[in-house]
Amino acid sequence: MTENTLRMGMVGGGQGAFIGDVHRLAARLDGKIDLVCGAFSRDPDNCIATGRQLGLEASRCYTNYDEMMRAEAALPEDQRMHFVAIVTPNHVHFPVAKAALEAGFHVLSDKPATLNMEEARELAAIVQKHDTLAYGLTHTYLGYPLVGAARQIVADGGIGKVRKVYVEYIQGWLAGEVDNKQADWRTDPARSGISGCMGDIGTHAHNLAEFVTGKIMTHVAADLSVFVEGRRLDDDGSALFRMQDGVKGVLSASQVCVGNENTLSIRVYGETGGLEWNQEEPNTLIRTYTDRPTEILRAAQGYLPADVQAGFRTPPGHPEGYIEAFANIYLEFAEALQTQGGVKAGMDAALRGMAFVEALVESSNNNSTWTEITV
Amino acid sequence: MTENTLRMGMVGGGQGAFIGDVHRLAARLDGKIDLVCGAFSRDPDNCIATGRQLGLEASRCYTNYDEMMRAEAALPEDQRMHFVAIVTPNHVHFPVAKAALEAGFHVLSDKPATLNMEEARELAAIVQKHDTLAYGLTHTYLGYPLVGAARQIVADGGIGKVRKVYVEYIQGWLAGEVDNKQADWRTDPARSGISGCMGDIGTHAHNLAEFVTGKIMTHVAADLSVFVEGRRLDDDGSALFRMQDGVKGVLSASQVCVGNENTLSIRVYGETGGLEWNQEEPNTLIRTYTDRPTEILRAAQGYLPADVQAGFRTPPGHPEGYIEAFANIYLEFAEALQTQGGVKAGMDAALRGMAFVEALVESSNNNSTWTEITV
Amino acid sequence: MTENTLRMGMVGGGQGAFIGDVHRLAARLDGKIDLVCGAFSRDPDNCIATGRQLGLEASRCYTNYDEMMRAEAALPEDQRMHFVAIVTPNHVHFPVAKAALEAGFHVLSDKPATLNMEEARELAAIVQKHDTLAYGLTHTYLGYPLVGAARQIVADGGIGKVRKVYVEYIQGWLAGEVDNKQADWRTDPARSGISGCMGDIGTHAHNLAEFVTGKIMTHVAADLSVFVEGRRLDDDGSALFRMQDGVKGVLSASQVCVGNENTLSIRVYGETGGLEWNQEEPNTLIRTYTDRPTEILRAAQGYLPADVQAGFRTPPGHPEGYIEAFANIYLEFAEALQTQGGVKAGMDAALRGMAFVEALVESSNNNSTWTEITV
Amino acid sequence: MTENTLRMGMVGGGQGAFIGDVHRLAARLDGKIDLVCGAFSRDPDNCIATGRQLGLEASRCYTNYDEMMRAEAALPEDQRMHFVAIVTPNHVHFPVAKAALEAGFHVLSDKPATLNMEEARELAAIVQKHDTLAYGLTHTYLGYPLVGAARQIVADGGIGKVRKVYVEYIQGWLAGEVDNKQADWRTDPARSGISGCMGDIGTHAHNLAEFVTGKIMTHVAADLSVFVEGRRLDDDGSALFRMQDGVKGVLSASQVCVGNENTLSIRVYGETGGLEWNQEEPNTLIRTYTDRPTEILRAAQGYLPADVQAGFRTPPGHPEGYIEAFANIYLEFAEALQTQGGVKAGMDAALRGMAFVEALVESSNNNSTWTEITV
Repeated sequence: MTENTLRMGMVGGGQGAFIGDVHRLAARLDGKIDLVCGAFSRDPDNCIATGRQLGLEASRCYTNYDEMMRAEAALPEDQRMHFVAIVTPNHVHFPVAKAALEAGFHVLSDKPATLNMEEARELAAIVQKHDTLAYGLTHTYLGYPLVGAARQIVADGGIGKVRKVYVEYIQGWLAGEVDNKQADWRTDPARSGISGCMGDIGTHAHNLAEFVTGKIMTHVAADLSVFVEGRRLDDDGSALFRMQDGVKGVLSASQVCVGNENTLSIRVYGETGGLEWNQEEPNTLIRTYTDRPTEILRAAQGYLPADVQAGFRTPPGHPEGYIEAFANIYLEFAEALQTQGGVKAGMDAALRGMAFVEALVESSNNNSTWTEITV
Repeated sequence: MTENTLRMGMVGGGQGAFIGDVHRLAARLDGKIDLVCGAFSRDPDNCIATGRQLGLEASRCYTNYDEMMRAEAALPEDQRMHFVAIVTPNHVHFPVAKAALEAGFHVLSDKPATLNMEEARELAAIVQKHDTLAYGLTHTYLGYPLVGAARQIVADGGIGKVRKVYVEYIQGWLAGEVDNKQADWRTDPARSGISGCMGDIGTHAHNLAEFVTGKIMTHVAADLSVFVEGRRLDDDGSALFRMQDGVKGVLSASQVCVGNENTLSIRVYGETGGLEWNQEEPNTLIRTYTDRPTEILRAAQGYLPADVQAGFRTPPGHPEGYIEAFANIYLEFAEALQTQGGVKAGMDAALRGMAFVEALVESSNNNSTWTEITV
Repeated sequence: MTENTLRMGMVGGGQGAFIGDVHRLAARLDGKIDLVCGAFSRDPDNCIATGRQLGLEASRCYTNYDEMMRAEAALPEDQRMHFVAIVTPNHVHFPVAKAALEAGFHVLSDKPATLNMEEARELAAIVQKHDTLAYGLTHTYLGYPLVGAARQIVADGGIGKVRKVYVEYIQGWLAGEVDNKQADWRTDPARSGISGCMGDIGTHAHNLAEFVTGKIMTHVAADLSVFVEGRRLDDDGSALFRMQDGVKGVLSASQVCVGNENTLSIRVYGETGGLEWNQEEPNTLIRTYTDRPTEILRAAQGYLPADVQAGFRTPPGHPEGYIEAFANIYLEFAEALQTQGGVKAGMDAALRGMAFVEALVESSNNNSTWTEITV
Repeated sequence: MTENTLRMGMVGGGQGAFIGDVHRLAARLDGKIDLVCGAFSRDPDNCIATGRQLGLEASRCYTNYDEMMRAEAALPEDQRMHFVAIVTPNHVHFPVAKAALEAGFHVLSDKPATLNMEEARELAAIVQKHDTLAYGLTHTYLGYPLVGAARQIVADGGIGKVRKVYVEYIQGWLAGEVDNKQADWRTDPARSGISGCMGDIGTHAHNLAEFVTGKIMTHVAADLSVFVEGRRLDDDGSALFRMQDGVKGVLSASQVCVGNENTLSIRVYGETGGLEWNQEEPNTLIRTYTDRPTEILRAAQGYLPADVQAGFRTPPGHPEGYIEAFANIYLEFAEALQTQGGVKAGMDAALRGMAFVEALVESSNNNSTWTEITV
């Protein structure tokens, strides 16, 4: 641990959870963040077992997050955690974030930030109030450097005025009834919120579309579906959408498209060019032109902008993937903490994501009427 | 020319037209159809030049289609044309078809069948009345044998109850102002009808979706766009749709997506599997399963159904393409003529395609309200 | 049939043969060549049946090629065939070509031109002697326009001085014992010559490498194999090779690589760039640079050289395939006949291909010693 | 740090080196290995700067490896390093490994193990002598779980008796004169050994071929080249090869194939099936059959063998890459240390790799004569 190493506490992510492990891999990769404490589970045994497996001191394996906030706040400054990573099911994101901020800790939360818009607005107020504290949201897919390259190309006018966006996030793992912990909370309104598939993965598509185009999505006309009998939340949906400055598009998300693993893809077309990117082949960015051959931009190549190159850890041809992208999110958060203090970058995305989901559900319930996305 | 060779007359397709050449290549490929006459252009010189280039007798190069119908009808039965191929701009499809049928000739028409629904209904009545005459519509993309394989797999329950369809037809060639004959009539309401992009290529996507799923599309909620300033017809659009039996989907068509050539693709997902096909790689059909590896089905392979295999002219690995698909449409029409007489297969597709376009435009004009597709 | 239509006679290609059909499709596609006679089989019934199916006059369905040459030569000049297409098994190529040339007919022969080098040299002398007669060889894969684009890019210095070539032709259809007519003669020395796989498909790889690079292959060090027990000719082989001007490379051909259909691919690298092309995706040519993104060159695009564009029959995104490539070979032969008279383009390729096979076999028999390819 | 955490020392990998960083990322990822000391550079300042950046205690930043061995050996058992990771240029691998083993430390060395066969044999003797100490070699590409899946499928008879192997490792980064530290030592015989490209990357191809097939490569007929003027070691080469039990193949490696990044690929064909894998798309394994559609096996899927699944850290569709593969090598070494003690798995690969390179060079110098690979 160097002087600059950040100390992280984690809420959620006990043994058996998927995303907690990924957060830990991501936080660990670059050696700039150390996990020092956690409240990994509501089950005290799981808490202890997880902490022990991770090499934590027993005294810093807490059995609930309130206790963790209190105990860590009481530790000497050079020992206590710097920030809290929240990796619980959705419905716990808000209370933990609130507790952490109020106890004086920075927060890096899994998405969505809260269970609903009301909570999101309340969280925004809290975040606003604690002006030296940072709030980040792990929109993992923005961690892929070529997504940043796409954003830059668009921002630099590389495809001309943007016209049309196709964005999708398609999976197949919930095509049947699935009996596991992951599937369980994702299809439970009390823990997931008003939307299943759209809240879980549609929000990534929304976030990606806004990030790459640099435009705000303003309206949606949505058709959400429940294809698996008995499921209480949407497992599929598509929406027409409109963005600022006349951009139009289509967004689809599904968890019942058999054979799709984790197909998050975006295609953006402007007056003079286009860009195509797919999360499952994240080291390639396709760039099209009106009168020249299509180009294959590749990870870590010298022709990429310097800051995009810097996002890769290995030379061209050494594929980097999801864990590296996730680690970039952690790295960026860590660097922001150390250089900018109370960055709030995540809060705007949090509000916009929540407003997007609420607009989708309202539109779908209202016969796909065009509905404004209101933060 | 064998005894079984069919004699074809053509209306449209003078020098400088794109699609006329393709029709002729397709008709010629298998040696079962001979072009014997034509009214290739409104310009008499073009008529003659085209006919001469094609080796026609001067006496059978007509300068208008009415004359062609009269003159051919007056020829001995063993010389006169059997059927008329219509390859004009859209607004001329109907009057030529009408004239041909009323003069006693079978018709194979480029799509769309007519300029609008009113004409389509009138044509349907005419087709109905001439019960020994055939009416076919060149929905070219159905000529790819693997599209037929997809339809069979779905029909046989190979992907379970169908749930979701994504279908797209995306091009980029009209992203700017284009100054050529092809672009000209396609963006002129008087010659193209009420829709540009959707009428021209969206209809292929609609047709493909219905063909593969075996379901009728019943409702659309559409958002059509004109992205190029001054253009009078849509050059882009997307629509949510619903089909019989609870199938949902998204259809997109565009002519302004820079870098896309002719990306007609379909993905269909059911309860237990999925299928993916793309016109630009037509010799591959992807098949997905819930619990087995994805399969790559390939053209002409022995594991395909026998009638699908029969649609290929060469062994596996010898790519077949657009011309072969188009030739399959001609071949099928020729065989139907010779074995079934007055087949009307095209008329239903004609009506459905026209109704689809009218519903799209109505929905788009009506703030994307769900609109029924009524034949 | 126009004034410019060429009249073709065919030897071989009776019902049940694969390649005869393909030749006929290819010859017919562009409407510039008419099949007027044939000696399709040694079996008179097959001859007649094939001819009838093709709409030939009974009098021009010959039961042996000598008779065909005599009878056609006796016809009036405006009726008799212009050239003979030879589509028999390999061992008959030479005698038919000889007979045709000596009877005054141009020849377009399937490859290899002859059964061995001795015959090839004899043929070359005959071809030479008949200076107004053309001799062509159907190296089909050169008919793909993007192969021509590759050659042009190399010739124009687009990849700098050529260094390394990888060329492969890999199939899997003979991985087991195969019981059909195609497999039968290909594995019979009396009908195929001294090599099976290399003679049949390795020669295409050799030809492609020389065509694209514009360099002559001078030496090979080869290792040929018989993997299927009891087979009498190689069904697999690889060779190191050297070309003029210091170019080096590797050539592989196989008919036992399970799952490969018809994978003819070439990669050529020079000092400043590279090119990659694969027959199974023939409408794409990959171009690489030292310091710029890789480009995807696509069929029929406006940025291709004009004569390459002219090789396509449809706009970008309308895939063209094997039959169109084959038709290009016929078209080029027809145009050459009409404009240049006694072109001998095929003879050089014929000699070089035969010498290549002989050098391979000699090297392989001689413990893979470097062996010169001597025409 | 848990009780089970292994303490690692590193030799090489100072600031500016590429591979040292990758080793550290890989070692760190799973939280089971802690870097506790290092002799990162011959430059003391770099040593200190690197150590400080990595958060090491100043006392454990050594300026030469001998000092490191002595000092660490003198530390209490619960503090001193468990093993040494060697990440220097090639010529230093052997002396460091020797020093480490003789000081009682396990060794995990970058490849090649030594500069030449003589050293390799000497090392083997040392490894043999220290029977409680482990010796591992980071053949990174074996760390990709789907490579293990391929090996299992072959071993289980999934493709039948193996016949033919194509293996390549192709890059383009040395196509011109390159002026950097990486290029520098790789082209210097004193630091790289008798081969450049083949020693650097050809050995990975050799190793991969033997691993997947489970067969020993016995003979090579090679043609190595120096394409860039003035370079002292091969920058390209190809070889025919033979393996046990009649397997034949072709191996190519190059650093001058412009546009290739890091294309390590293998295709293996047996009597009844085939397998294809490419390092640049490491999450996909293609499996072919004689009579069934080709299958796409994908990372982390439930249909993979359990131990292959266990090699992935995230669910299907979350791409894993080079760093995760490398981390698997570290993880496996760590687990072997903890469960098996003095494993020597790396030594055999080390000897075989060195013998392979020596045979290649000998064959190439000897006019590509078949040369035995003798350990």
